[in-house]
Amino acid sequence: MISYRQELWFNVPGRRAFINITPQVDEALRTAGVKEGLVLVNAMHITASVFINDDEAGLHHDYEVWLEKLAPHEPVNQYRHNGYEDNADAHLKRQVMGREVVVAITNGKLDLGPWEQIFYGEFDGGRKKRVLVKIIGE
Amino acid sequence: MISYRQELWFNVPGRRAFINITPQVDEALRTAGVKEGLVLVNAMHITASVFINDDEAGLHHDYEVWLEKLAPHEPVNQYRHNGYEDNADAHLKRQVMGREVVVAITNGKLDLGPWEQIFYGEFDGGRKKRVLVKIIGE
Amino acid sequence: MISYRQELWFNVPGRRAFINITPQVDEALRTAGVKEGLVLVNAMHITASVFINDDEAGLHHDYEVWLEKLAPHEPVNQYRHNGYEDNADAHLKRQVMGREVVVAITNGKLDLGPWEQIFYGEFDGGRKKRVLVKIIGE
Repeated sequence: MISYRQELWFNVPGRRAFINITPQVDEALRTAGVKEGLVLVNAMHITASVFINDDEAGLHHDYEVWLEKLAPHEPVNQYRHNGYEDNADAHLKRQVMGREVVVAITNGKLDLGPWEQIFYGEFDGGRKKRVLVKIIGE
Repeated sequence: MISYRQELWFNVPGRRAFINITPQVDEALRTAGVKEGLVLVNAMHITASVFINDDEAGLHHDYEVWLEKLAPHEPVNQYRHNGYEDNADAHLKRQVMGREVVVAITNGKLDLGPWEQIFYGEFDGGRKKRVLVKIIGE
Repeated sequence: MISYRQELWFNVPGRRAFINITPQVDEALRTAGVKEGLVLVNAMHITASVFINDDEAGLHHDYEVWLEKLAPHEPVNQYRHNGYEDNADAHLKRQVMGREVVVAITNGKLDLGPWEQIFYGEFDGGRKKRVLVKIIGE
């Protein structure tokens, strides 16, 4: 069994962003040299997500508006978590979008559907944060 | 390590549906012949879900009503994604219900709890779409 | 390939609770003796979750309030699932928080970010329920 680990680092200037990380995961897979197996891609921070959806700017705007409606940032004092922090909404948004994806590896490639792209979802930016890519297989 | 891959195809006539795919995943596992390992079951399309919950018609109705409240289909022009399409709501609903499940394989069987059933959730039907079943183990 | 399976049992007195199960998953990993691989931790019941987030009481209160707003328990007759039961809201809440997490194993340890903790989320307590820990690797 081959095992491979890589971290992807991000430093989003604003509070929120969606970043397509499919190329980086693809490159990690080529480095790992696994032909058949699974890749786990997860946010290592609890105010960020890794999810799979469409690389379309209109949809990302829709996600932003929708998540802000489901779990508004303001007023920050509506959340008990926000004693010393103001990121409670980010912990909520991340649950809707998810922490991780598991993707099949087939014939040495990410076994994705036609429009599937892997995204890092940042909900509390302004500092360095990481994503873990863990590959196991043969 | 054994690796096995199978696609399940669907063509839901209406816009939305929940389909129990546990028997198909079970049969894929018997074909793969894996005794210990993991099975990944994921929608290959970004307006559909694979999730685990109860096979109970009342609950499925509740999911339908609830998702429509959280991410309404109409009016379609409330979403920027809906320039040429009308399925932005389906991309949102799919995030709530999830893209994938990972199920343990123990003694050659899906290691599910007493009421756990695997579902395909369609949120933008009327065309052919796929689910990936990927099994790894021994 | 090493394969290891363990069940964690819970009996939450009230209806809802969040319980940090990181120590139990950590101990299962030590028992399994896997150095490189994946651990799947999933609720075996469909009104409960396993998720990763912060071990902070204020945030858990925020989750409780937020989930009750997204999928209220009362009035119970708003849900068709609630013919003989009153737990439809628990099936909905669990979808928001998720069924499972997959965590990387690196150098014999759970490869978690600095604040990542694994939680059991109970949404319909008052009886014995289980979480499955399945470890595969080498």
